[in-house]
Amino acid sequence: MCGIVGVSGAADAARLVFMGLYALQHRGQESVGISAVNDDGYARLSRRGGLAAEAFSDEDLDTLPGSLSLGHTRYSTAGGAGLVNSQPIVVSYREGDLGLVHNGNITNAGLLRTELVEEGALFQGTIDSEVIVHLIARSRCPSVEEQITEALSRLTGAFSVIITVGQTLYAARDPWGYRPLCLGRFPDGGWMAASESCALDLVGATFVRDIEPGEMIRIRGHELTSLKSIDSNAPRQHCIFELVYFTRPDSRVWGQSVDRARRAFGRQLAREQPAEADIVFSVPDSSNSAALGYAEESGIPYELGLIRNHYVGRTFIHPTQQGRDFRVRIKYNAVREVLEGQRVVVVDDSLVRGTTSMGLIRLIREAGAAEVHFRISSPPVRYPCFYGIDMPTREELIGARLTVEEIRQRLNVDSLGYLSLEGMVDAVSESGPFCHACFSGEYVAPLLDLEHGLEVPTTC
Amino acid sequence: MCGIVGVSGAADAARLVFMGLYALQHRGQESVGISAVNDDGYARLSRRGGLAAEAFSDEDLDTLPGSLSLGHTRYSTAGGAGLVNSQPIVVSYREGDLGLVHNGNITNAGLLRTELVEEGALFQGTIDSEVIVHLIARSRCPSVEEQITEALSRLTGAFSVIITVGQTLYAARDPWGYRPLCLGRFPDGGWMAASESCALDLVGATFVRDIEPGEMIRIRGHELTSLKSIDSNAPRQHCIFELVYFTRPDSRVWGQSVDRARRAFGRQLAREQPAEADIVFSVPDSSNSAALGYAEESGIPYELGLIRNHYVGRTFIHPTQQGRDFRVRIKYNAVREVLEGQRVVVVDDSLVRGTTSMGLIRLIREAGAAEVHFRISSPPVRYPCFYGIDMPTREELIGARLTVEEIRQRLNVDSLGYLSLEGMVDAVSESGPFCHACFSGEYVAPLLDLEHGLEVPTTC
Amino acid sequence: MCGIVGVSGAADAARLVFMGLYALQHRGQESVGISAVNDDGYARLSRRGGLAAEAFSDEDLDTLPGSLSLGHTRYSTAGGAGLVNSQPIVVSYREGDLGLVHNGNITNAGLLRTELVEEGALFQGTIDSEVIVHLIARSRCPSVEEQITEALSRLTGAFSVIITVGQTLYAARDPWGYRPLCLGRFPDGGWMAASESCALDLVGATFVRDIEPGEMIRIRGHELTSLKSIDSNAPRQHCIFELVYFTRPDSRVWGQSVDRARRAFGRQLAREQPAEADIVFSVPDSSNSAALGYAEESGIPYELGLIRNHYVGRTFIHPTQQGRDFRVRIKYNAVREVLEGQRVVVVDDSLVRGTTSMGLIRLIREAGAAEVHFRISSPPVRYPCFYGIDMPTREELIGARLTVEEIRQRLNVDSLGYLSLEGMVDAVSESGPFCHACFSGEYVAPLLDLEHGLEVPTTC
Amino acid sequence: MCGIVGVSGAADAARLVFMGLYALQHRGQESVGISAVNDDGYARLSRRGGLAAEAFSDEDLDTLPGSLSLGHTRYSTAGGAGLVNSQPIVVSYREGDLGLVHNGNITNAGLLRTELVEEGALFQGTIDSEVIVHLIARSRCPSVEEQITEALSRLTGAFSVIITVGQTLYAARDPWGYRPLCLGRFPDGGWMAASESCALDLVGATFVRDIEPGEMIRIRGHELTSLKSIDSNAPRQHCIFELVYFTRPDSRVWGQSVDRARRAFGRQLAREQPAEADIVFSVPDSSNSAALGYAEESGIPYELGLIRNHYVGRTFIHPTQQGRDFRVRIKYNAVREVLEGQRVVVVDDSLVRGTTSMGLIRLIREAGAAEVHFRISSPPVRYPCFYGIDMPTREELIGARLTVEEIRQRLNVDSLGYLSLEGMVDAVSESGPFCHACFSGEYVAPLLDLEHGLEVPTTC
Repeated sequence: MCGIVGVSGAADAARLVFMGLYALQHRGQESVGISAVNDDGYARLSRRGGLAAEAFSDEDLDTLPGSLSLGHTRYSTAGGAGLVNSQPIVVSYREGDLGLVHNGNITNAGLLRTELVEEGALFQGTIDSEVIVHLIARSRCPSVEEQITEALSRLTGAFSVIITVGQTLYAARDPWGYRPLCLGRFPDGGWMAASESCALDLVGATFVRDIEPGEMIRIRGHELTSLKSIDSNAPRQHCIFELVYFTRPDSRVWGQSVDRARRAFGRQLAREQPAEADIVFSVPDSSNSAALGYAEESGIPYELGLIRNHYVGRTFIHPTQQGRDFRVRIKYNAVREVLEGQRVVVVDDSLVRGTTSMGLIRLIREAGAAEVHFRISSPPVRYPCFYGIDMPTREELIGARLTVEEIRQRLNVDSLGYLSLEGMVDAVSESGPFCHACFSGEYVAPLLDLEHGLEVPTTC
Repeated sequence: MCGIVGVSGAADAARLVFMGLYALQHRGQESVGISAVNDDGYARLSRRGGLAAEAFSDEDLDTLPGSLSLGHTRYSTAGGAGLVNSQPIVVSYREGDLGLVHNGNITNAGLLRTELVEEGALFQGTIDSEVIVHLIARSRCPSVEEQITEALSRLTGAFSVIITVGQTLYAARDPWGYRPLCLGRFPDGGWMAASESCALDLVGATFVRDIEPGEMIRIRGHELTSLKSIDSNAPRQHCIFELVYFTRPDSRVWGQSVDRARRAFGRQLAREQPAEADIVFSVPDSSNSAALGYAEESGIPYELGLIRNHYVGRTFIHPTQQGRDFRVRIKYNAVREVLEGQRVVVVDDSLVRGTTSMGLIRLIREAGAAEVHFRISSPPVRYPCFYGIDMPTREELIGARLTVEEIRQRLNVDSLGYLSLEGMVDAVSESGPFCHACFSGEYVAPLLDLEHGLEVPTTC
Repeated sequence: MCGIVGVSGAADAARLVFMGLYALQHRGQESVGISAVNDDGYARLSRRGGLAAEAFSDEDLDTLPGSLSLGHTRYSTAGGAGLVNSQPIVVSYREGDLGLVHNGNITNAGLLRTELVEEGALFQGTIDSEVIVHLIARSRCPSVEEQITEALSRLTGAFSVIITVGQTLYAARDPWGYRPLCLGRFPDGGWMAASESCALDLVGATFVRDIEPGEMIRIRGHELTSLKSIDSNAPRQHCIFELVYFTRPDSRVWGQSVDRARRAFGRQLAREQPAEADIVFSVPDSSNSAALGYAEESGIPYELGLIRNHYVGRTFIHPTQQGRDFRVRIKYNAVREVLEGQRVVVVDDSLVRGTTSMGLIRLIREAGAAEVHFRISSPPVRYPCFYGIDMPTREELIGARLTVEEIRQRLNVDSLGYLSLEGMVDAVSESGPFCHACFSGEYVAPLLDLEHGLEVPTTC
Repeated sequence: MCGIVGVSGAADAARLVFMGLYALQHRGQESVGISAVNDDGYARLSRRGGLAAEAFSDEDLDTLPGSLSLGHTRYSTAGGAGLVNSQPIVVSYREGDLGLVHNGNITNAGLLRTELVEEGALFQGTIDSEVIVHLIARSRCPSVEEQITEALSRLTGAFSVIITVGQTLYAARDPWGYRPLCLGRFPDGGWMAASESCALDLVGATFVRDIEPGEMIRIRGHELTSLKSIDSNAPRQHCIFELVYFTRPDSRVWGQSVDRARRAFGRQLAREQPAEADIVFSVPDSSNSAALGYAEESGIPYELGLIRNHYVGRTFIHPTQQGRDFRVRIKYNAVREVLEGQRVVVVDDSLVRGTTSMGLIRLIREAGAAEVHFRISSPPVRYPCFYGIDMPTREELIGARLTVEEIRQRLNVDSLGYLSLEGMVDAVSESGPFCHACFSGEYVAPLLDLEHGLEVPTTC
């Protein structure tokens, strides 16, 4: 769960990348980094902990001159050495300075690392992305394009990458196409590549198209060339969880409006899991679209039953508040006047651990709801993700441990209904085929490290 | 525009106050302060710039022991001497340490200050709240209650105050009742007074009642006494702008759910200002309730046309973005798939300067809306507020300078409709009577400073 | 133990004050503050924790415009409310904005405070300096000069003060003259008042003269007038401890070079307390002058036996280092090659608690010294100071608890010799008469608070 | 100009390293880093800008557990990528985690880097130290000892290094022995290696011996083994500038007390460059020993003519102070009473750019000195250092541009005398042979990069 951005051919590119990261903050809030290549080909780098919006000052951005820049925002700072595992990675190699940002999870990173270490490669940290830069540097191919192509061809799993070598930017997606990556253009001819189209909107770039699975594009200043990076017969495996939860509703992903996709999930959910109720409302903001779809299809009035407090920073729990859902309450409040005496349908996008939901249901009941019908606009999450979504272990996945009826009792709701796998996939079929391994356990890209008994990180 | 909280009779009161300030952050995001009275009667104080959520660490709260505490969150740090003008005010006087938090604006503060200065009083800063503590300290009345009552009786204008003297907490509202202040109880018997009930919800206190206009309550530990503080025939003047925009929708104010009030504004708006349109949507989040009311009444489907980015910190504008509504775009994005080709009703709660609205309308038009019908769930703001809402000067108020038709043209919308003053007041009549001076220019509490030619601050 | 500075009639006065505080950092390292009066007569204030050198940025100083400015550096941040007790104090009163910095200790501050509180005065903190501004504001005298004179006439004890009212600067010393305060002039006509002349040297001002005991000077821009502030027959009581330890050796105080005074102490010490030894060295840097005087007079070669590490910040003690004099060792190291096998005379300026000395002697013995003869260039400190030097309580004063022979044994030195009171006073007789209460217990200025059973702060 | 420390076999080793860095802060004040190896063999790293004393909090040190640790303090943060060029370097390679700290300058680093890059090695920054870790990782030797030996054998120039691989510590010096590195032992059996012995003194470790040129020692826990690391006939080249200026006077280097060495320089200077004068004083503190030696030999009384202010942080120059030696004045003040009317000998350790000296001489003349005889306890610095001392370019070296007589006129002194090269070397002959290239231009270790036209960094 990361967001990546690259800009080429635009003055003060680092500032545009910074703005793009603003729009992608929902993809990672723990660390953020920007590199920029100056006219001399020298890459400067700045990585910080925290939100993009707070991590860089105007002066920081002044230290990153140039018209070519990369940015990365990261969900987790797990790993012992802090920023060593954050991105962009910037190194100097035979062809000059090389920068890389990566979203996804490489499923044979452990095997490749073992091989590289054996050859005398030095690793700074533990993230899988580091193997990519070593593979590029060690390629004996004559051109940079071929070096990158050779390196990417050796990877299995999920990767959307943006790379700079000297003054050239490369952007590529894995042959399965797990993670999104799209392309936009500035009015004056420069280019931006970004995880989601909402980043283009913010900086005033026009959406051009998605980068295709297995495609690599090369941008020099304003000039773009499409290269087939990886000759593979891999079937498409767009991550459906991006549509369910992860992307912003105003983004377009894989030819699909995310808002429209979630609306379709909600409508299908209403058909599959109807309820006798007075009102329907969402767990804001990620479920707003699905709840509205449910309301439309069911004819039950859409309401605002929960209010979300967006000013949530570090929270210090009062001793008497422990165990009283304080972390839920600081984020959400129920509107008593809306809920009191009502039979309510609560729509949420997914159910992972179930702990927040339990707190929310208690809040809703305390506010006087007569009946609570909980509806999830995706199937039960039962399997870990090895392609870049930071899911908890199976032991923590409530859907892997309990039956639907057991979960219903645990959450203390009058009814619980999930969207079916078929219903979900059909609702957005034009954007597929999809990877739904977290729901179905069907892992398509080979899990080579796992097969060789190597530990597989489940975070990006 | 401030939020205030007080806690009595609860261990670690400062932490409860801190949580309460979390819930009141929408009332002030520029500075925050907490005082606490330890068992020895000694008041400690900590004031910071910034959001409550970020200004205090757990260690900071450890330095504020005691079961009696006050908190304040402030909208503006205007004034030359920074935190000198922030609250709580904590001073030492004849009866011991005195702490005060104040929400509102005192309309004879200038006259009183002149008089106090003449007598040798020293002022630390420029805020009106400082006169209250001087009046209390200079009162020759024998009891603390009488000292406070005498002091408050000399004030005109708007004030909700919470005061600590030694181990006792006092909370009072001005006789007109401009600003809200409510009372809640902890399960184990302690009390919390707060600007809005959402603060009670967060800490697990139960809403008991509003403090009445002209009423003062005294709390010693768990024991509460109601005192008539100010013998006045002042007519009630609840600030209707609190319901229109300022309070959180999950709060109860003056016996009224804010969400219900805004819903009623929206429905009345639909009756007064109908539109031929395909969809209706809000400017999130403050207008969600009103937009939903409009959709209900009009039968036009409710949609999510604008997405709000909540991760907005300091923003550094790219040179090429200047003048391109960047500050609007970093906060909002339009969902093209929802808007394209549609005739849309956009509902906003109020129209003050009009600059953000102009940017939003451009965003909506660029996303392909066929027609834009702009609806405001309150009348045009035409007059400054002297009772504690931080309104711009008349020159900046678009409603004071232009006719509705001129504003429509300026905003470039197909139609523009405001809610009428009567319609607004009638929709929430059970909570009145109301002050609607910012719409009508009818100032009820005397504007003594203004009449004497003294400068009147329009910020709290 | 504080340092104060005031500048009048010089552009960018706050920056000159800041530089002056640099030179006075040895007088206080815990908090620092600067106020400045702009052309509009409005006083701005900035107070910070920490060293002057680190507390203010160039941007901070930009926020303090004007040609009239005050500065204060403080030894201790004791007191519950942090910066509330730091200086300058800036308040607004009848005659405009009033700023004050104070060095010394007022011995009837408690009585005055009680009286002021009774009259309704509000106090922000606990420092004695606050009573001065209240007395000024409450004076009914017609002119500012008379108001200040009346206020200062009511004080007993030690005070050097610099005050600004509007565009005028006042500087005064108590009638006994306990604390130093001198006057310098800029080449272009502006004035600086400062605790020590080293502050004048740093900013390029020329030393003019000391301000006299009981004198008040008034400076308006470039024009200076001397006023008799306090008509008193108080005998002079220059604090001799300023010469012994507190002032910088390059300062002139009371017509005396501090370096020359300490040299005289050292020579007299050699006459009174000779030793059979091979080398003499100082505890750097405060005893360098005295040690050199001892060496001159005794003919024993001067050496550098101890090295001081000046980069001492926060120190975290390793578990195995506890009890091993780590805090001494991080500051000093002994030079084995100098000490090994030698009979050494170690000269220190004063002996207060004795803990650092004990660690130093161990260091010196471990480095191989054959005999250690410890010489103190002042008498035993036996009494607390009520006039502004931060001495520990009598229980902590090693000279109050033990005889000289007992101290010798405790420190484990072969001989211990103090300078006699008569010897000390005679050595610098041209600068007296002196207060030597910390050595003799003779308190000349009345200790009114103490006589009335009020607690007397021993810190400034 | 760096300081390095390593600790093995002592609990909480990072805290001991931190203390050691305290003692070595004079060797580098711009950045500081500590790595520690936990019992699992995993190395943690923390690098910061600024002084050791301020860069690490107690909590920071808690994050660096283990009984094996390295530390580095660096003079300069030059280089575009900030902390990328700071140390320790910590990487993961075939044999586990590898940490390295390095003091010195490798004169064939450019050639080696070119070769490594050609083979696909990735570089993080631009410092020469990075080539060492690549050479180790790429060695095909079977044991770690042999890998390190092979790597070090390929280097020319100056290097004292401390390396950790897994739980083992290695410390080595180049065959010429340019930079110091000594060995100490804790009472309970652990070991510390450090640039100077003053670091051992601070933590309570006993000085054991210098590590020999070309020697490598290996420490596992408490067990130490000496290995011949590099079989070379290189002649000894101890850097004499370490004795002249760089090391602390309480350190022992190469069997020599630094204080004694400087004293000998001062005495020899007095013999070579006598003066008719009344007093002699030093530029504190680095020249104290030499000045004392001069005074002893000449019989002219030693005085304290200059006072140094040690509280020097960031300084903001007042507009009127520009060009008035403010940076000199904030650091030094002259004592008028000592200097007035006197013929003075001022002793400084070296003369590099001459700018500070010019300011000092003006200060001394303004304070009334009748004659100024400037004496330098080393020869004119005429050549750059390629072995790790950060000297300015030849253009900036006053000794390279001007004759002694020209310098005398420029400084405006009555006489100027340098110590001769022969006099200097003879005074400390027992510690040689020495590198005196900065004085003589005789570079002994080959300057391979320079010969191949590669740019040679002159900073460590």
